[in-house]
Amino acid sequence: MTDRFTPTPDDKFTFGLWTVGWRGVDPFGTATRPALDPVESVERLAELGAYGVTFHDDDLIPFGASDAEREAVVKRFRAALEATGLRVPMATTNLFTHPVFKDGGFTANDRDVRRFALRKTLRNIDLAVELGATTYVAWGGREGAESGGAKDVRLALDRMKEAFDLLGEYVTTQGYDLRFAIEPKPNEPRGDILLPTIGHALAFIERLERPELVGVNPEVGHEQMAGLNFPHGIAQALWAGKLFHLDLNGQSGIKYDQDFRFGAGDLRQAFWLVDLLEDAGYAGPRHFDFKPVRTDGFDGVWESAKNCMRNYLILKERSAAFRADPAVQDALRDSRLHELAQPTAPDGLSGLLADRAAYETFDVTGAAERSMAFERLDQLALEHLLGLA
Amino acid sequence: MTDRFTPTPDDKFTFGLWTVGWRGVDPFGTATRPALDPVESVERLAELGAYGVTFHDDDLIPFGASDAEREAVVKRFRAALEATGLRVPMATTNLFTHPVFKDGGFTANDRDVRRFALRKTLRNIDLAVELGATTYVAWGGREGAESGGAKDVRLALDRMKEAFDLLGEYVTTQGYDLRFAIEPKPNEPRGDILLPTIGHALAFIERLERPELVGVNPEVGHEQMAGLNFPHGIAQALWAGKLFHLDLNGQSGIKYDQDFRFGAGDLRQAFWLVDLLEDAGYAGPRHFDFKPVRTDGFDGVWESAKNCMRNYLILKERSAAFRADPAVQDALRDSRLHELAQPTAPDGLSGLLADRAAYETFDVTGAAERSMAFERLDQLALEHLLGLA
Amino acid sequence: MTDRFTPTPDDKFTFGLWTVGWRGVDPFGTATRPALDPVESVERLAELGAYGVTFHDDDLIPFGASDAEREAVVKRFRAALEATGLRVPMATTNLFTHPVFKDGGFTANDRDVRRFALRKTLRNIDLAVELGATTYVAWGGREGAESGGAKDVRLALDRMKEAFDLLGEYVTTQGYDLRFAIEPKPNEPRGDILLPTIGHALAFIERLERPELVGVNPEVGHEQMAGLNFPHGIAQALWAGKLFHLDLNGQSGIKYDQDFRFGAGDLRQAFWLVDLLEDAGYAGPRHFDFKPVRTDGFDGVWESAKNCMRNYLILKERSAAFRADPAVQDALRDSRLHELAQPTAPDGLSGLLADRAAYETFDVTGAAERSMAFERLDQLALEHLLGLA
Amino acid sequence: MTDRFTPTPDDKFTFGLWTVGWRGVDPFGTATRPALDPVESVERLAELGAYGVTFHDDDLIPFGASDAEREAVVKRFRAALEATGLRVPMATTNLFTHPVFKDGGFTANDRDVRRFALRKTLRNIDLAVELGATTYVAWGGREGAESGGAKDVRLALDRMKEAFDLLGEYVTTQGYDLRFAIEPKPNEPRGDILLPTIGHALAFIERLERPELVGVNPEVGHEQMAGLNFPHGIAQALWAGKLFHLDLNGQSGIKYDQDFRFGAGDLRQAFWLVDLLEDAGYAGPRHFDFKPVRTDGFDGVWESAKNCMRNYLILKERSAAFRADPAVQDALRDSRLHELAQPTAPDGLSGLLADRAAYETFDVTGAAERSMAFERLDQLALEHLLGLA
Repeated sequence: MTDRFTPTPDDKFTFGLWTVGWRGVDPFGTATRPALDPVESVERLAELGAYGVTFHDDDLIPFGASDAEREAVVKRFRAALEATGLRVPMATTNLFTHPVFKDGGFTANDRDVRRFALRKTLRNIDLAVELGATTYVAWGGREGAESGGAKDVRLALDRMKEAFDLLGEYVTTQGYDLRFAIEPKPNEPRGDILLPTIGHALAFIERLERPELVGVNPEVGHEQMAGLNFPHGIAQALWAGKLFHLDLNGQSGIKYDQDFRFGAGDLRQAFWLVDLLEDAGYAGPRHFDFKPVRTDGFDGVWESAKNCMRNYLILKERSAAFRADPAVQDALRDSRLHELAQPTAPDGLSGLLADRAAYETFDVTGAAERSMAFERLDQLALEHLLGLA
Repeated sequence: MTDRFTPTPDDKFTFGLWTVGWRGVDPFGTATRPALDPVESVERLAELGAYGVTFHDDDLIPFGASDAEREAVVKRFRAALEATGLRVPMATTNLFTHPVFKDGGFTANDRDVRRFALRKTLRNIDLAVELGATTYVAWGGREGAESGGAKDVRLALDRMKEAFDLLGEYVTTQGYDLRFAIEPKPNEPRGDILLPTIGHALAFIERLERPELVGVNPEVGHEQMAGLNFPHGIAQALWAGKLFHLDLNGQSGIKYDQDFRFGAGDLRQAFWLVDLLEDAGYAGPRHFDFKPVRTDGFDGVWESAKNCMRNYLILKERSAAFRADPAVQDALRDSRLHELAQPTAPDGLSGLLADRAAYETFDVTGAAERSMAFERLDQLALEHLLGLA
Repeated sequence: MTDRFTPTPDDKFTFGLWTVGWRGVDPFGTATRPALDPVESVERLAELGAYGVTFHDDDLIPFGASDAEREAVVKRFRAALEATGLRVPMATTNLFTHPVFKDGGFTANDRDVRRFALRKTLRNIDLAVELGATTYVAWGGREGAESGGAKDVRLALDRMKEAFDLLGEYVTTQGYDLRFAIEPKPNEPRGDILLPTIGHALAFIERLERPELVGVNPEVGHEQMAGLNFPHGIAQALWAGKLFHLDLNGQSGIKYDQDFRFGAGDLRQAFWLVDLLEDAGYAGPRHFDFKPVRTDGFDGVWESAKNCMRNYLILKERSAAFRADPAVQDALRDSRLHELAQPTAPDGLSGLLADRAAYETFDVTGAAERSMAFERLDQLALEHLLGLA
Repeated sequence: MTDRFTPTPDDKFTFGLWTVGWRGVDPFGTATRPALDPVESVERLAELGAYGVTFHDDDLIPFGASDAEREAVVKRFRAALEATGLRVPMATTNLFTHPVFKDGGFTANDRDVRRFALRKTLRNIDLAVELGATTYVAWGGREGAESGGAKDVRLALDRMKEAFDLLGEYVTTQGYDLRFAIEPKPNEPRGDILLPTIGHALAFIERLERPELVGVNPEVGHEQMAGLNFPHGIAQALWAGKLFHLDLNGQSGIKYDQDFRFGAGDLRQAFWLVDLLEDAGYAGPRHFDFKPVRTDGFDGVWESAKNCMRNYLILKERSAAFRADPAVQDALRDSRLHELAQPTAPDGLSGLLADRAAYETFDVTGAAERSMAFERLDQLALEHLLGLA
């Protein structure tokens, strides 16, 4: 069935190979689905209306593959891309699955491991660029610790900075059109992960040698695992000019990383997120980083992939209707959002200091009594979300 | 009883007037203790060995007091400071108690409220400087929202930036020796507060006109309310050169803001925090922002104030013993912390790329098999914390 | 505007006087709204289509009122009930606001306080019955502790049992048609509250002298503050025959108690909750225990009260459509919900043990490969919630 | 080194084979340690001073092993037990690793799977009894759902009850001296697990045909994953006479299941837990269900196993000193714990109603002003924990 929520490549929906390819291994269970050929994933995603695919090096080329195997895999993959028209706007490095990364990649205590991690990353950057990627994601899932003595965080941040400075130097030297996007996560698989939230990653970037090359790749569930409001985090990333990429999925509160399809989990935040991205004119791919539930077979895999996109388009339509509704515009005015858009002190510091109405004669009680009228506004939003208004 | 854990002013312990003065009002109950005269607080804290006191404007001078009342209060307070030798290293503004701030201070949708909030702040800055403060804390507890439409976060960050830029201009113009410290908190009293974590605040600061004037004032419980590792956050703040002040207290996990005395709550993180502050040579005040439990009378108030300091000194002694223990030094080496201190690529990018041992001939399996020996190290830390090792 | 989501008394919507009457005091701020006359609340709620009101003794009659004042208040309140037709199906005791309850009511360490708490409760039970209530709620918000030594939990449970046994004896002796409903909450205002979840309360009830008189009064936000699935908890309460009452509101995850209007917070769980209550034929009142946001004036109070009911009716319509949809019925079958309804061993233990197909010759691999088809089912639910299917 | 914290079998410390045998597979990484021969585990644990080992069927006998293989494994295992003197006080069934259990065991929608799960359990019960076990644990980790339509919780509880009724019938028929212990967990690996807390499990048990045969097996981290106070939960289980077994480990707050060694995680709750178990005279095994961190080799495995026991003994010594300290006894009296031990109404309902001092003439203000003196008591506890008092 095709309807107005059926995506086209213009919607710029992308999927990680590791998402539809997830086999269902979890901390208490083995795989429930067989491995999926990346070429099949490319074909199926293209049929569903996706714009592109993304990958970790090891998703495509098995860890430890010979050069010949690697070449064969890449050739076949490239052919599938060409046949389907699917793009590769982003790639990333797997620095977490192999036991060699058990204490991290860029910040492992073991220096040899750090050097290996950097070389593994540099190698895949070449492939990423070759395949047309312009964003390179870095999720440092193993950069962290379970106990206080195991990691000196200030030194680890030195090593993390060193890594990104080297990566920045590399793409600059090579003349690559590639920017990095750091993906924060608070914990799991480590007890505490470095750069645990969007904020920490944004702050870290400012201390790099080439901050302009590095932004963030926030993931819905990762911020929600810290109880943080995802749209608020995205707004700060946009405000800082650093939303280089993002990972859409679903999470039900503070618990293990659930990676549900987009639209599952916190529906209200999903609505405000789409509202924000569309309002801000975010131009990057809408990338899904989710795991089809392991209770399902491949039917569930493709069903959920389709629905990630479908749910985005539903919410986009609902957001547009919300913004266009005159009742909403009235409510926004009653909640004085237009005043928030005005500078607080267009008269400058001296004007503010001289203005007796701002303090000495200010009617505090009167101002305190003005209703913000937020309940009405929020109900309008809810009813638009529900397709009622 | 005086022992080696009895503080002196050299330990630089400070307390907010609002801490010992907290009357026990909570969302479901009225005050259980009478108001405390700030002068009595000064005297008692001095007797207990504190270095200083800090205050919100309204802690000292009732909201709406006349100029004459204000002067009388300040005079009496100053006399108490002089009599006791207590310092005022920090002050802050109350932009949250009065209903006029129900939608925020610097980012209230209502522009009049924002102007009033700025003027209220500027006014107290003058007093803070007069009393010798060199740090001015800004906790934006009401800067946030309960619903998605009520706040445009990008605009709110514009207004927040405008406020700090004006404050920076003011202290610069006035020639004040005063720096600002932003205090992050994820939620409560608002559903979601802007700049919810240390990271978000650090990132925000980088977009200000005078970033050098602004740092952070992290609070133990506030980061732990987001499930974040407090010592990790402090380490990143130190790494960024932005730990201008901090609030010590106790919190038991992700729930309402508990503000227990320092040492209550997460004992292990308290140990690693003191270990980090002492190791980093943090020179600022050790400021306690806690609430004596409302089940207790004034006995509990002074008991808990005393114990905040006592617990810090206990943990400081334990941390020193941990660091001095040869068995710990061995364990740190076995966990390869010394390698983390070494640059990953002292040979630079080209050296790294040319080094076949870093990738092509790297013994991945061998490296993966090396134990990090973290269990032993962490047990040593625990036994030092427990006074056993 | 009246539409199909405008309630009538037949919908059995009820409100606590303390909900619309909440003045906006929170841990960091004073009241933002004036007090509301209970009679006005009765009149407004009746106009909005409510079925009844509920109250804590102190909501109606100020703590410490004389008998004459009490009588006058009750007379006026009763007149308003008669004039509007509003019922009082439930009442409860305030054992938390006054400082005398700072360490609890039924489990305060101080025996005098426990006796006072019981007498205060017994007194209000008389009034509750007089006003027609058949359910008496007990929220033990102060029954708990902030530190491990402060409460011996086994003894406290003895005291709690003693209290409910006495209450049960009282209503039995008096011949009252009144049942008790215990309201669990994990924390806030105490660090840890006794009987923290639906499960703990259900288990406790089984040890009472008259378990048949006592059930639970679960509140949406209270379970969600522990990260628990509210509909799952309600299902277990229904399964145990113990859902005597419930408190509907909204909560955004694990944090302070938010008490948003019903429909705010976790929308998906709200949908499944209504679906469950309607499917189970729950006959009790749909009681709202929420707090209109303190940013709003009385406009927000009545707006949110209206929307609590409206949102319930919207979700009820959506749930009915979901259950009636043949595509949903197909999907439920594909997910084998009908098999869950069948006994596992209709052949009894011996039949099961004798059945080689159950174990020895069971095709484990084949069974493991069957898809549960949950992704499709959940998307259908989402689209019904969104009004699309 | 042997000291007073070196355990002996009299301390009744037991370990799951799956704990020291955990290979380090997590959601993002493959095994970091080779498989461990159960016989080696038995030998090493005996050397360390353990009392016993416990197992899931599949820990000992690979899933799908032939009868001959099974017999050989059991024979060798039994020989190791005899050689070392180690006991098997508890066993359990693995109903979660194999993909056939992806939707649960006793409550899988698929009836064939439920029958298989029951038969698998019954088979291992025979072995458990043969090896001397008197407790059989049931962790229903896969009994749950990720989405609201996927599981009808009331039906699932019917099936869960059916399963435990059948198991109860079986052990009764067979004349086995074996009791069941249900292990609650709120989530992971399912989005929401049925019987999520101690309370829910206790309540469920009361609806069984043979409730006397079934108790709980609470795990430290599982309750803490819901933010609940573990000692409080254990106290309620003891109060209900249902603490049949328990799982000791460490967890750092609300996040994924960490399974740290006992003593890691929340140290304060660990202290109060040991204090409670020892005070209550809990006679069962102190069972460790932990995972040695995957960053470590076998050095970390045995180090952490040793330290689980060592930390228990340290805390036991500290708790004994706390209880023996006259200053603590004074503080407990000042906090009026002795009053909590007294019945509230030894004079019965009529006495209470007749006592004007209980209500009419009660000095509410005076009672409200009495300090509970909890701050002093808690500091004494902290200093005993730290070995200072």
